[in-house]
Amino acid sequence: MVLFSIKKNDQIPVYQQIIQNFIRLIEGKTLNKGDKFPASRVLAKKLGLNRSTVYRAYQELIALGYAESMPGSYMTVRERPELADEKHKSKKGILLWDKLVKPEGGKIKTCYLQFRPEYSKNNANSIINLSSLDFDHRLYPLNQFRRCMNQVLVNEGEKVLQYGEAQGYLPLRECIAQRLQLHGISVGADEILITNGSQQAINLVLSLLTKAGSKIAIESPTYAQILVLMRYYGVGAMEILLQDDGMDIHYLENRLKNEKPAFIYTIPNFQNPTGITLSQAKREALLNLAEKYQIPIVEDGFEEEMKYFGKAILPIKSMDKNQVVLYLGTLSKVLFPGVRIGWVAAQKECIEYLTAFKRFSELTGSTVLQAAISEFFKQGYYDLHIKRAQRMFRKRMQTALKTIKEHFPEEVHCTRPDGGYTMWCSLKKPYHDEKRLQEILLRNGVTVSPGEYYFHSSNPRKYFRISIACLNEEEIEEGLIRLSRALKEM
Amino acid sequence: MVLFSIKKNDQIPVYQQIIQNFIRLIEGKTLNKGDKFPASRVLAKKLGLNRSTVYRAYQELIALGYAESMPGSYMTVRERPELADEKHKSKKGILLWDKLVKPEGGKIKTCYLQFRPEYSKNNANSIINLSSLDFDHRLYPLNQFRRCMNQVLVNEGEKVLQYGEAQGYLPLRECIAQRLQLHGISVGADEILITNGSQQAINLVLSLLTKAGSKIAIESPTYAQILVLMRYYGVGAMEILLQDDGMDIHYLENRLKNEKPAFIYTIPNFQNPTGITLSQAKREALLNLAEKYQIPIVEDGFEEEMKYFGKAILPIKSMDKNQVVLYLGTLSKVLFPGVRIGWVAAQKECIEYLTAFKRFSELTGSTVLQAAISEFFKQGYYDLHIKRAQRMFRKRMQTALKTIKEHFPEEVHCTRPDGGYTMWCSLKKPYHDEKRLQEILLRNGVTVSPGEYYFHSSNPRKYFRISIACLNEEEIEEGLIRLSRALKEM
Repeated sequence: MVLFSIKKNDQIPVYQQIIQNFIRLIEGKTLNKGDKFPASRVLAKKLGLNRSTVYRAYQELIALGYAESMPGSYMTVRERPELADEKHKSKKGILLWDKLVKPEGGKIKTCYLQFRPEYSKNNANSIINLSSLDFDHRLYPLNQFRRCMNQVLVNEGEKVLQYGEAQGYLPLRECIAQRLQLHGISVGADEILITNGSQQAINLVLSLLTKAGSKIAIESPTYAQILVLMRYYGVGAMEILLQDDGMDIHYLENRLKNEKPAFIYTIPNFQNPTGITLSQAKREALLNLAEKYQIPIVEDGFEEEMKYFGKAILPIKSMDKNQVVLYLGTLSKVLFPGVRIGWVAAQKECIEYLTAFKRFSELTGSTVLQAAISEFFKQGYYDLHIKRAQRMFRKRMQTALKTIKEHFPEEVHCTRPDGGYTMWCSLKKPYHDEKRLQEILLRNGVTVSPGEYYFHSSNPRKYFRISIACLNEEEIEEGLIRLSRALKEM
Repeated sequence: MVLFSIKKNDQIPVYQQIIQNFIRLIEGKTLNKGDKFPASRVLAKKLGLNRSTVYRAYQELIALGYAESMPGSYMTVRERPELADEKHKSKKGILLWDKLVKPEGGKIKTCYLQFRPEYSKNNANSIINLSSLDFDHRLYPLNQFRRCMNQVLVNEGEKVLQYGEAQGYLPLRECIAQRLQLHGISVGADEILITNGSQQAINLVLSLLTKAGSKIAIESPTYAQILVLMRYYGVGAMEILLQDDGMDIHYLENRLKNEKPAFIYTIPNFQNPTGITLSQAKREALLNLAEKYQIPIVEDGFEEEMKYFGKAILPIKSMDKNQVVLYLGTLSKVLFPGVRIGWVAAQKECIEYLTAFKRFSELTGSTVLQAAISEFFKQGYYDLHIKRAQRMFRKRMQTALKTIKEHFPEEVHCTRPDGGYTMWCSLKKPYHDEKRLQEILLRNGVTVSPGEYYFHSSNPRKYFRISIACLNEEEIEEGLIRLSRALKEM
């Protein structure tokens, strides 16, 4: 009956030798399902061991699934299931995910599958991309960043690779507070939450300030990706038309008399998609309305740094004495999106709510990246980089505006932004066949972003967005000439 | 009337000179609120300029808020509001955030303010921390990581600092898929979503698979931070008691006959907080139940790599032929939490839902960190690090178990885990005064984690969790001796 022997002075403890031997016998099919194990008393005697040693080994064999025992009966060999490797896995599975996931999940999945091509990008070399809002990666200050990262890892790697503060790395919050001073915004580091880009800030704000059935006031058109989240959360839109100097404040005021949105979302500078800047007078009027009706303003300053022409108009937040403005900023459109750094600046109590939800939804952000970027600020690299980027994009925007003026057919109207990367074009007549439009554009070697992405309600198909974010002057000129050709063809 | 002159061949365009001059006059109080601007025709004539140049300057002055005009009347100087700097800012603000934020936000804020001390940590040198589950940062393979990061930035910095794939950097997903093979799990890179640690994975799963009023089945006690999120989302608990070999499957089965939870959340290996391992037979039984009742299992394998004693029991996911298991993994408890890398491995369709919501809630994760970590895997550093960490923590756990056996009062019962970092201790009698307990612990120079964090319903105050995650052998021995002293004092 005893099928193996035990080495008493071996490195491997005796009870583990018993386990290993039984596993070998079972896996080698010497012992098979249903076979009885020797009684522990008997085995112990035969091997010259204490019964408790055998008992311990048997308990582990049960835990490992090689054995089972019924009360009052022998322990027997148990059949372990096969691993679910590729050949055994049912590709379809047995769960119906579209039933298990809540309906909003289905909506957002559809959007994801539609949007995905944006990130796989149309990289055919011959196509000029006037649709992407990704900052030109040829301008990345890579070496400076690499030096900062290296320095941070050498000097404080142990610290910054741990969990950090949920609110974000304090030195970076201090750098951001200092930078915001340049734009007239006075906030302390405790009034700033670092987020994974602006998009996370928008998600946090929507999560906490709205519930299904809420409405928020938005410019129409507006940032495409807030619209997807609004649909996901079941949040409706109070759509405020954009005029040449920003949203129609009178219309907003009339709407507010009857209905209170959870917040007002605005992109005052070089608005996405239109490139329009909200005038100073309207900024003041909007702030007054928000105070009067006690409605928070969510001010998206995603391209605050990218002013090229005219004197700077300061953010609404700079005048926010009564703390109704949540100001969003980000590095994603002027530096590296890959570091995932954005922020919210708002009243401390509001920041605490946002931080709390962020903390329980992912614990902390990436302290190591936040530390490298705060070094990047401290070394003065950020300032240098922004000055260079402004200089280059001023020229690029000039080229764009000049090329449009010279080449576009007269019946196409385009905005003339003071900064940022985007222009908004409207056609006299709607195009009926989007597929055909895309086909003509591709044939001419150029892409733009279709206007319908930017509207909450359906709209006449007569708009598109041009972005110069990832192109140099030659590419902009050539791209816009191609686009004008395509437009004439239509 | 003309208060300034213009340099026609200056670098600054003429219209901007006009603007700057007016702003100087207004800010210097030479011109004041209500003062009229000269008619554009008149000013143009005086300065010898084209009228359209003056018109353009005037339009910009209006946009900047220095002027206003009523139809059919002169343009006049407008009062601009002061900036909201520190001395003008109303500290209290006018918004009542606790009314504007939805009630669940208040609950989570309370938890945040309570939990926060965990991250500020009790760093008084004299206190030995037996409460933290943070991996010992003295074991960080810092130089290897720094080399990987540097290499990635040199070779592909431009690429990895851009937005990446929402699902996570493909080479890292491939590394993880390969690593999971070691644990018997066969999944492809398309069945993996990289998350910001396990906590984000848990948040995504809760967001998509539950709604207010849902229930999920959890072990009791369980991971403290899923409980906070459950309360936030209004999700109830089907609490399944833990036995020495894992959750009480018979009880679970009885409950499932009457009620269907949204999913079953389990930590089969070295469970947090108890250190208990779910036996193989129970893993199979649990999987069978999930298949029978069509309920997803969320298997949290957060310390899969940290097995020290006995033969490995493979994850439930390794047997998951019918694709009902969502497997969660993370680097946070065995390497650097600061890189924020965790993952979900599940059926592709399920991954698409999770990815979609992640994508719209923050666009992408940090590709640059994901790339550095995938280099870290490829260089073999991860494997080396894990082997070393296992070796060290095997000894540390042995020290802990030995010290407990030798020093703890008999009436305190502690689990004896096969891996991980935590032990669960129960007292014979509940302590009634938590403050006094903490006081006695601190006086003895040691902290543990109070048991109540880990229960969904209130519980008798007779448990606490010991964690050795951040301590070496000497510290563990000394800490446990201090703890035993405190226990005797009680």
